[in-house]
Order: sequence, then C-alpha cells, then structure tokens
Amino acid sequence: MPDPCIFCEIIAGRLPAAVLYQDERITAFQDAAPIAPVHILLVPNHHIPSVNAAAPEDEAVLGHLITVARQLAQAQNLQESGYRLVINTGPNAGQSVFHLHMHLIGGRKMPFHFK
Amino acid sequence: MPDPCIFCEIIAGRLPAAVLYQDERITAFQDAAPIAPVHILLVPNHHIPSVNAAAPEDEAVLGHLITVARQLAQAQNLQESGYRLVINTGPNAGQSVFHLHMHLIGGRKMPFHFK
Repeated sequence: MPDPCIFCEIIAGRLPAAVLYQDERITAFQDAAPIAPVHILLVPNHHIPSVNAAAPEDEAVLGHLITVARQLAQAQNLQESGYRLVINTGPNAGQSVFHLHMHLIGGRKMPFHFK
Repeated sequence: MPDPCIFCEIIAGRLPAAVLYQDERITAFQDAAPIAPVHILLVPNHHIPSVNAAAPEDEAVLGHLITVARQLAQAQNLQESGYRLVINTGPNAGQSVFHLHMHLIGGRKMPFHFK
C-alpha cells in the first residue's frame, strides 16, 4: 500500500495540525516549519499533486485559496504590512509535498526578488 | 488626472510588452526585468489593485491565472524541472505595481525557503 498523503491525512483529521480554516473545499493550517512570523499553508481538500495536474474544473477552488488567504492575512493584521503567496511546483522550486499547496508568508520584510 | 495603471495600458495594447497569452479574462506577458530564464507575469484584465481587494466573485479569474500559468510553464518545458508562482501584496512583499499580478518563475534552481 502506498504511503498516505500527509496533507490528505491532515484534511481528514487523522494527523495533527494547527488548522486555522476549513470548509467543504479547502483547508488552511500552520506550516510545521515556519520561515516567517506568519506561515500558513492552504490546500484543496481533494488531492491535486501539483499545479501540473490542475485542470480547468479546479479553477474555482484554486481561486478560493487566494481569497481565503486574503481573509487569513487580514485576520493576522497583514493587510497593510503585506504578504506573499507562493505555490511551488517540482524540483527547481523545492516542492516537497505532492499535494498542491499555497504558502501564505508574512510578518517580516521579504526580499523584493524572492530568488 | 491620475497616472494610468501600466498593466491596464499593456492589456489594452497602449503600452508595448511581449504578450504571450490573452483571452477575455486575463493577459500574460514577459516581465521587463526578469529574475530567471523564465519570468512571466499573469494579470486579470480588470483592475484589481492587490489580493487585499480580491472578492469572492474574482475567484474564477484568479484560478484561471493558475491554470494558464501551468499551460505557459508547459510551453516553456518547465513541467519536469519545476516553477514557482508568486503573488506579492504590499510593502513587506515588495509589490511594486498595484494591479494584482502573478509571477511565473522558472528555468533555474530556486532556494527552498524562498525568503
């Protein structure tokens, strides 16, 4: 049997995580290894391995990740100071979990060139 | 009269840019100051200043940015090597043009921690 996807396990409540938001389409939880004062992951509840596998019928849920990220950023008082949304795909970008996820990062200055 | 938005001017064809994709909802063009071998900007055709101003009715077009980014990444042969999608909001993230835009970056290794 293949290893279960750790994000699918978190979504289902079978692995612990600090869940900040959940609805019938997406889940948001604290990154376990934060790189900034605010570092939240937002994921579709259904398993999409990466952006490479995102289909036109996924557009609504992918857009929903962005507007919920906005809500969470505002709840963390980041709307004035700013925040960065990042989706990594594949080895050059360092994608480490193959369940599509968006990083919401804020609470400190981030280099303009995000390289 | 306020200065026009440079991305609105590009979308309307009044400012030059290397446009790679356009439909009735979004436009994609080369970043004028690329930070990687592939650096493309994707923007909604209607003016949304930042993620802070994104509304639930914008979710479909925001998700469309992501699936068109996937298409452009594949056209650039990045689907195996990988790519990063980034949306910056506000000063801490270095947002410089206040028309919501997604960066598609690829063609080289990017640090895992994107800080």
